[in-house]
Amino acid sequence: MNIILAGTGNVGINLAYALKKRGHSIIQFAGRSNNKPEIIKKFRIDYTCRLPEIKKNTDLIIIAVNDDNIPSVADQIPDFGSVTVVHTSGSVEMNVLSKFRSHGVLYPLQSFSKEKIIPFKKIPLCIEANNKNALRKIQDLSDQLSDNVHLISSDERKILHLAAVFACNFTNHMYAISEEILLKNGLPPDLLKPLINHTAARLDQMPARKAQTGPAKRNDKKIIEKHLKLLSYSPKLQKIYKTLSDNIQQDKQ
Amino acid sequence: MNIILAGTGNVGINLAYALKKRGHSIIQFAGRSNNKPEIIKKFRIDYTCRLPEIKKNTDLIIIAVNDDNIPSVADQIPDFGSVTVVHTSGSVEMNVLSKFRSHGVLYPLQSFSKEKIIPFKKIPLCIEANNKNALRKIQDLSDQLSDNVHLISSDERKILHLAAVFACNFTNHMYAISEEILLKNGLPPDLLKPLINHTAARLDQMPARKAQTGPAKRNDKKIIEKHLKLLSYSPKLQKIYKTLSDNIQQDKQ
Repeated sequence: MNIILAGTGNVGINLAYALKKRGHSIIQFAGRSNNKPEIIKKFRIDYTCRLPEIKKNTDLIIIAVNDDNIPSVADQIPDFGSVTVVHTSGSVEMNVLSKFRSHGVLYPLQSFSKEKIIPFKKIPLCIEANNKNALRKIQDLSDQLSDNVHLISSDERKILHLAAVFACNFTNHMYAISEEILLKNGLPPDLLKPLINHTAARLDQMPARKAQTGPAKRNDKKIIEKHLKLLSYSPKLQKIYKTLSDNIQQDKQ
Repeated sequence: MNIILAGTGNVGINLAYALKKRGHSIIQFAGRSNNKPEIIKKFRIDYTCRLPEIKKNTDLIIIAVNDDNIPSVADQIPDFGSVTVVHTSGSVEMNVLSKFRSHGVLYPLQSFSKEKIIPFKKIPLCIEANNKNALRKIQDLSDQLSDNVHLISSDERKILHLAAVFACNFTNHMYAISEEILLKNGLPPDLLKPLINHTAARLDQMPARKAQTGPAKRNDKKIIEKHLKLLSYSPKLQKIYKTLSDNIQQDKQ
């Protein structure tokens, strides 16, 4: 496939490597800066900062920019009719691209960085399209990139994003609180890493609900009281400890 | 070293494998059941269920039983004077063993199962002892088992346990909530695994506080409102979402 990539950020660069590896031609990069960014130079591919003038002879245009910039980037790209235009965002609806006769979404459910290019083979790709031809095009491409392709509607993507806030953002906040508690008491945060990794890896063996352990799960009131006392310096942390322990106890089967 | 292991559970069996691997002699297992448990038979080692009659010619007795049973097990073991007695618990104070002239703690900070014996090399071992000789004995042994040995007091172990509740128990509860949200909407929980693993692995690169992302971190009120609306079926989940988002926002630098 001939592909144009609009966006030279973390997602764009990782996608570019994955697409090249599968033998696709990226015929042009489009970005905001007037000069070709350093990271693009490696690819020896045409670069433009003038979106209205991007190449026409392409099969697919991938918009891989920040959520807030998708509408303005889409505005500047001409509709060539047979060219399918997709964005890569988890939280933006597909219909932000509705001016293109053929459009869709190709959302890789992973965090990317330019510093560490990662293989796409296992990354869940959530795809959506406004018609059968566009879907076939996006699906064929996605199946080549990953073994983990899912047809997900815009509404389902919102749910996915909400679930990710719990499983990733809030989880990271739990790590941050535990770091803070350890550092405040002169203990190295590294101590908990093996247990943290174990907790994440255990999801391969059983659902999280079944894997739940700890004082709240076994209704160990003595320990819960002791912990709340240790946290007496921070009513906020006490509130979090209580709220989550209550919820775990209500979940008990 | 000649070692007696009191306890045939997950910790005991994993310790037995690790000790044997480093060339130590486990001269006896002690357990509750009258008959030698199946899992012990593999070791071809003497077994007893009568603690008061355990062998005397040993350097170390390791009590690896449930927290609640440590006092009664300790009660039944005679004090041989030069024999050091340790327990392996994260939340029980060392002085529960104070009847032994030489006593301490050897707490491996990891979850174990009999089904999957894991290597000790990277496991943090938290040790404590009531005198220099006991400490030297426990430290020498621990250094042979792991590269990750820490001198941790009983008070520090309490803090460690509290931090682990946040980093592991509460984290697992976040996974459970996200599973519930996905399943309720007919989406496969596996979708989030790559992101979950990424969130845990990122701790090797930066402190969790620095790695924080998500709507609360970037103060994205529109998304937060949308998420609370999606959770309107569960006031409990709304409360958790709000409590944690508020705390992340207060953490903002």
